[in-house]
Amino acid sequence: MLKRKAEAADRLFHALADANRRAVIERLTRGPATVSELAAHLGVTVAATVQHLQVLQDSELVRSEKNGRVRTCRIDPAGLRSAEAWLQRQRTAWEHSLDRLGAVLDDRTKESGS
Amino acid sequence: MLKRKAEAADRLFHALADANRRAVIERLTRGPATVSELAAHLGVTVAATVQHLQVLQDSELVRSEKNGRVRTCRIDPAGLRSAEAWLQRQRTAWEHSLDRLGAVLDDRTKESGS
Repeated sequence: MLKRKAEAADRLFHALADANRRAVIERLTRGPATVSELAAHLGVTVAATVQHLQVLQDSELVRSEKNGRVRTCRIDPAGLRSAEAWLQRQRTAWEHSLDRLGAVLDDRTKESGS
Repeated sequence: MLKRKAEAADRLFHALADANRRAVIERLTRGPATVSELAAHLGVTVAATVQHLQVLQDSELVRSEKNGRVRTCRIDPAGLRSAEAWLQRQRTAWEHSLDRLGAVLDDRTKESGS
């Protein structure tokens, strides 16, 4: 279970570690787009765009649906939330440990002053 | 400039896309640790730990300093903040675009009702 969670986090951050995939996310935050529109936006082929979309869908960063011959993509909030939550947890834990260190230093200052 | 920024973001998310490197960050949020302590925590060799630390330092996720023969590592908040800021921007942009869509749908409902 923990291993599966770690693999999902590996996939998620790997999906974000590519400028074209981040550009797809940035575009989709402004509204849905078709695969052709995304390819034009990136300036790459439709085939390359489809590959990027596959990686983004596997990480729940993007979802898509097909109507006739047109596939429309939109943001899947699950991936963004999951990555943000991990980072927030780390920052909060780090800030708490700084607070504890600050309290220890305050106590020592008081002790040496008394 | 933009290209350099994109490369830095690529490096940052790539650094986070590894369970051992995330485990180093999780450990260091609780306080500084030496390279040997981190190697023991991960259950890998010191050499492998040093390689992971290099990747983390290149992305400003970890900083370290050497006192005599002992290298002590701690969290560098710059990397965590930068990754969190990018994700927050995407989520905020997406929520705004949902709000705009909601407003358009509300207007249409009112128009069809009047």
